[in-house]
Amino acid sequence: MSGQPEGLVTLADVQAAGERVRGVVMETPILRSDVFEASTGLAYLGWKCENLQRTGAFKARGAVNALAALSRSHPSLEVFVTHSSGNHGQAMAYACNLNKKKARVVVPSDAPAPKVAGLRRLNADLTFCTPTQKAREETCAKLLAESGGADRARLLHPYDDPLVIAGQGTIGLEILAQVGGPSAIDAVIVPVGGGGLISGVATAIKGLAPNVKVFGAEPLNADDAARSFHAGSGTATPLAHRPGMPDTIGDGLKAMLSPRTFAHIRTRVDDIITVTEDQMKQAMRLVMDELKVVIEPSAAVGAAVALLPEFRDRLQGCKRVVVILCGGNVDLDKLSSDYISKL
Amino acid sequence: MSGQPEGLVTLADVQAAGERVRGVVMETPILRSDVFEASTGLAYLGWKCENLQRTGAFKARGAVNALAALSRSHPSLEVFVTHSSGNHGQAMAYACNLNKKKARVVVPSDAPAPKVAGLRRLNADLTFCTPTQKAREETCAKLLAESGGADRARLLHPYDDPLVIAGQGTIGLEILAQVGGPSAIDAVIVPVGGGGLISGVATAIKGLAPNVKVFGAEPLNADDAARSFHAGSGTATPLAHRPGMPDTIGDGLKAMLSPRTFAHIRTRVDDIITVTEDQMKQAMRLVMDELKVVIEPSAAVGAAVALLPEFRDRLQGCKRVVVILCGGNVDLDKLSSDYISKL
Repeated sequence: MSGQPEGLVTLADVQAAGERVRGVVMETPILRSDVFEASTGLAYLGWKCENLQRTGAFKARGAVNALAALSRSHPSLEVFVTHSSGNHGQAMAYACNLNKKKARVVVPSDAPAPKVAGLRRLNADLTFCTPTQKAREETCAKLLAESGGADRARLLHPYDDPLVIAGQGTIGLEILAQVGGPSAIDAVIVPVGGGGLISGVATAIKGLAPNVKVFGAEPLNADDAARSFHAGSGTATPLAHRPGMPDTIGDGLKAMLSPRTFAHIRTRVDDIITVTEDQMKQAMRLVMDELKVVIEPSAAVGAAVALLPEFRDRLQGCKRVVVILCGGNVDLDKLSSDYISKL
Repeated sequence: MSGQPEGLVTLADVQAAGERVRGVVMETPILRSDVFEASTGLAYLGWKCENLQRTGAFKARGAVNALAALSRSHPSLEVFVTHSSGNHGQAMAYACNLNKKKARVVVPSDAPAPKVAGLRRLNADLTFCTPTQKAREETCAKLLAESGGADRARLLHPYDDPLVIAGQGTIGLEILAQVGGPSAIDAVIVPVGGGGLISGVATAIKGLAPNVKVFGAEPLNADDAARSFHAGSGTATPLAHRPGMPDTIGDGLKAMLSPRTFAHIRTRVDDIITVTEDQMKQAMRLVMDELKVVIEPSAAVGAAVALLPEFRDRLQGCKRVVVILCGGNVDLDKLSSDYISKL
């Protein structure tokens, strides 16, 4: 990477986020396994456990950074709104509590009960709507308007936001510090949904350790990022999902890139690798059996790329690899039956 | 605790074990959850994650300590034998590999396939036998004899061994160091099976922090330790299981105390609390949902005592508590169906 494309999040932005989230979000551990290093032949294989993060996913970082920054720069803001009932919704509610702001979350009427319960536990103000994208956006707009307009209320997008991207990037800073510096690893593998996580992590990694590769991992059944990335250098607008897609157990990865996240990915990511549903289920079993941590299916894409032999050539010879396990919010009732492959 | 009863493991033994296992076993993290501290009203509730330990359970500590000590004190020993095909068997095989000794494990013919696979992966030498206690012990004796006698081969008991007890006790040392010293907590909750873990931990805790309570947690359906403990001060011999017992999902807790472990427990443990099967399943769900770590049912007994309101009075007013999550070796295929309660 050379130069600093206009409008992209910078290493300094991520470092500022690092100061804001320090001591608030968890410095998650990097686990290792002799068994996995033997089975893969990798010299170092670390697992950055954002599934152990507050609220069960990396999303806490972006939300905590955004709320901390905005509470200072725009003290009149009192209400934050989103229509993510998943990990970002919980993260925003958590961050609002820390900053004594009100969290209003639009929830589709078919949202799973555990997610609704999680939001209620965090004292989020919930507004139910019919489960269509149109209804969600309209309900958000209504909430913003009735909350007193732009001075008092703000939408917090799950990924298309520089403060959110910078917050997620703090994972990259932590990884480099925990492994012992920029020369201690060769690659980081990052799940890709809307692209906020990988945009931030790539900014941190390429800023501090330009020789470290950043690989995205994405479900084949939600491969808008991989298709956009491989469409050729002339493409600046990300592609939409293929017809009938997304259709994946990786429910956190169904979102599509925004022009902003794609701009980060085009310039700072080395490759995006797609993973089948069956490969995700294999990786779910391997990780939970060996590492003893609970991951959600979205976290399995990166694990599959690191663990399954069919991806070995895609690692471009990298021998010291860190995989980001992005979250652990999974329905335990469905775990054995739907999300892990049988032996 | 006052004085030093003859023949018991001492704090110095545990500290020597701490030197031997340092850098070999993992210093496992202590996790926390805002949600659990709010729901229990405890001021501090830490989760010592021995499920993340090498081989997936605390047993690695005792085996690593014993093998390190015996390899030095008895260099002629070349073969170690056990008839535990579970966590201790894997731990012994792991420790033998480190010390270039041969691990011979007697495996009942009905042992679950994942356990057998785990032992094979560690290059243990397996001998199958009919699944009775008598056949297991006889096969062990035969292996010991054919391995060249007491100078060359030794049985490594899963808990009735001072070196094993001292190794498990290193968890107690780590807890006190991690929380910030002897005055930072009020109690530690420890699962009880054969009693090796709690004997070692209580030795460390009462040695360094006599005011910190040590509570055992045991399945009601395998309550030999609780019955022995509460039988009165005249009892020096541990009681056997009740008729028809043990019958618990906590498969790691079916063993009975030995006179040695009971001697530690009588003098160094403050109470032993029993937990029903349903309470264990409730705790399995709570821990995996909130902490995002995989635990085996044996680890759920301590979690139940900390989390469920019906045990609050048993904590004797302690407000700062650490729970030892002893292991994570669970059959994922049975997790949703057999081991966690439905919501």
